[in-house]
Amino acid sequence: MNAKTKIVSLFNFNDPLTLETGEQFSPVQVAYQTYGTLNSAGTNAILVNHALTGNAHAAGTITEIETDINSNPDLLQKYSKLHNGKKGWWDDLIGNGKVLDTNKYFIISSNILGSCYGTTGPVAIKNIFNRKYGMDFPTITVRDMVKVQRKLLEHLGVKKLKAAVGGSLGGMQVLEWGIMYPEMLESIIPIATSVQHSPWAIALNQAARQAIMNDPVWNNGSYKEQPIMGFSLARKIAMISYRSLESFETKFSRKRKETIDNNINNKIDNKNIFQIESYLNHHGTKINERFDANTYIYLSNAMDLHDVALNRGSLPEVLGSIKIPTLAIGISSDILYPAEEQKSIAELIPNSTYKEIDSIHGHDAFLIEFKQMEKIISKFLKENNL
Amino acid sequence: MNAKTKIVSLFNFNDPLTLETGEQFSPVQVAYQTYGTLNSAGTNAILVNHALTGNAHAAGTITEIETDINSNPDLLQKYSKLHNGKKGWWDDLIGNGKVLDTNKYFIISSNILGSCYGTTGPVAIKNIFNRKYGMDFPTITVRDMVKVQRKLLEHLGVKKLKAAVGGSLGGMQVLEWGIMYPEMLESIIPIATSVQHSPWAIALNQAARQAIMNDPVWNNGSYKEQPIMGFSLARKIAMISYRSLESFETKFSRKRKETIDNNINNKIDNKNIFQIESYLNHHGTKINERFDANTYIYLSNAMDLHDVALNRGSLPEVLGSIKIPTLAIGISSDILYPAEEQKSIAELIPNSTYKEIDSIHGHDAFLIEFKQMEKIISKFLKENNL
Repeated sequence: MNAKTKIVSLFNFNDPLTLETGEQFSPVQVAYQTYGTLNSAGTNAILVNHALTGNAHAAGTITEIETDINSNPDLLQKYSKLHNGKKGWWDDLIGNGKVLDTNKYFIISSNILGSCYGTTGPVAIKNIFNRKYGMDFPTITVRDMVKVQRKLLEHLGVKKLKAAVGGSLGGMQVLEWGIMYPEMLESIIPIATSVQHSPWAIALNQAARQAIMNDPVWNNGSYKEQPIMGFSLARKIAMISYRSLESFETKFSRKRKETIDNNINNKIDNKNIFQIESYLNHHGTKINERFDANTYIYLSNAMDLHDVALNRGSLPEVLGSIKIPTLAIGISSDILYPAEEQKSIAELIPNSTYKEIDSIHGHDAFLIEFKQMEKIISKFLKENNL
Repeated sequence: MNAKTKIVSLFNFNDPLTLETGEQFSPVQVAYQTYGTLNSAGTNAILVNHALTGNAHAAGTITEIETDINSNPDLLQKYSKLHNGKKGWWDDLIGNGKVLDTNKYFIISSNILGSCYGTTGPVAIKNIFNRKYGMDFPTITVRDMVKVQRKLLEHLGVKKLKAAVGGSLGGMQVLEWGIMYPEMLESIIPIATSVQHSPWAIALNQAARQAIMNDPVWNNGSYKEQPIMGFSLARKIAMISYRSLESFETKFSRKRKETIDNNINNKIDNKNIFQIESYLNHHGTKINERFDANTYIYLSNAMDLHDVALNRGSLPEVLGSIKIPTLAIGISSDILYPAEEQKSIAELIPNSTYKEIDSIHGHDAFLIEFKQMEKIISKFLKENNL
């Protein structure tokens, strides 16, 4: 399946995006992909939401980027290069005959507000002097991301979603969809996510942001080149929570790098002697190639601010108000958003089912255990005639 | 109970400490405290081992430091000030009538090799030019720490230990005692520790070291003032693994700082709005006052190198060779050295018992749950006529 990234400009000075902070903001470019065909009634769509460092390329293989907007061309080219020829992050689940079947559904995947893969965020050009927003970008929240998605659906002519589905930060958006626009949804499928970002998860995010901000290259967000050392460390901190102890144990145990023998005679300044350390270094390097440091600060901050009950009532009241069928999926070894948290989400939403992915891969399992997810989601869609 | 820190010089050019790397090193100053009286046979001693950022001040209140050695006087004064008037970290367990009863036992607590509380480490003066070792300090391991403790016992006239006890890095030393000098021990009590430092724990330590090394003030270890930003971040990363999700949830939930209301209108640059963040910042600041950044690098590296089986045989063989009574204590909510890990230690040591501390406090529970520990340890000592 070919995938095309399209970019559209939503909101304008007369019809701005009102952020949760009250600030008004426009325009908002949104990069998105769609798979399948929208029916004439506009009622066969499914919204797929990506996670923190994800993007709109959920399925297929990117062939081109289509935009009539004066986007940051360097950036688009950069991310396009990263994507070209690569399959989308949920390609196993989206396509002809797959559980999110493109013969039946019109699948929409959009890069979230604040991200750096074509949607407006800190890397976007702010003014005629060609300056990026950087840390002048306004504070954004998960609710703001959902507002932008809603606007995109209007633009696409979607009247009703069969489902909104996503893991992690994507799942937070799914939950907000269920609360903010229930009339536009037939069901929600939040996976390995959170209703109120926990202090432990906040602590990890704060440490990651601190790692970036400690790097002198970061320069209060006005960097020309990425703060590589700090951002690399931020990614490592996050990776520690994305996998389970068992998954690291199985994959790496205490294996040493090939060039390093089992002798203790490795000086301390030869500080990366274990394979786990090389693995983390590799991911630290990769994040600098494919993501932006300020963007990481903004999106992780949005996660920390995420609290579906804020200014709405008690958590049981707010989740109790979701009446549509809900499938909450947990991962047995997730230490970031534990299975227990998903169970309690299901307990508070009346018309809900809890299912668990049995995996040693920790939080990341929603990007790995496709067979289990396919089975669980397929059953749910069938049972609810979706 | 009064406590006095003594400092002794062990090893010398003719009788050097042979490190696990093969390197020979001398002299080694050791700061230690003792509580109670050694019997004439030298057989009523118990060795208590501290954790990563701990020190010899395990019990009582420090009154003075006694040394005839040309130690770094500024440093001793600094740490003495930090300690003066404060009770030791296991004061609830050590003393007159307590489980480690000073009427019965001679309790020894020594600052480990490489640490910065009076024992020789990276902060020690290297040469006549008054230069510190810094990153020129040799690579040290847990086995080296134990060798130094053994030498201290000789100096004190101790012939046999009733027990060696300690948590975390202290527990690693305890396990090495059971393997290296079984003839000198009647029992061991490893708590919330590890036999082979796991890749997950290594990942956390590597991230913490990277945080220090990323700080330009660190300057390859040749700093005049501490690399405050980096070391503070290192501590935060560690703290995330020391407490449980539940403990953070109970203590902080999503409570905001007093000066910050529940409004979302807090700019992103006001980046610490949650109490959990203030708590971590506080601990980040504290560590800079009470510990040394290079020392943290060396000791965390020793933990990563810890592997009781290295160059000795298989893990079952090595642990199977420990014949003395062993009490392995786990903590129900420990995510760093999980209860499962402690159970499997007990399974591999023939004459062993496993007991669990039921706590929401995570790894730190061995410094908190004194009543449960007292009960468990007391029973073990009685049953084994110790």
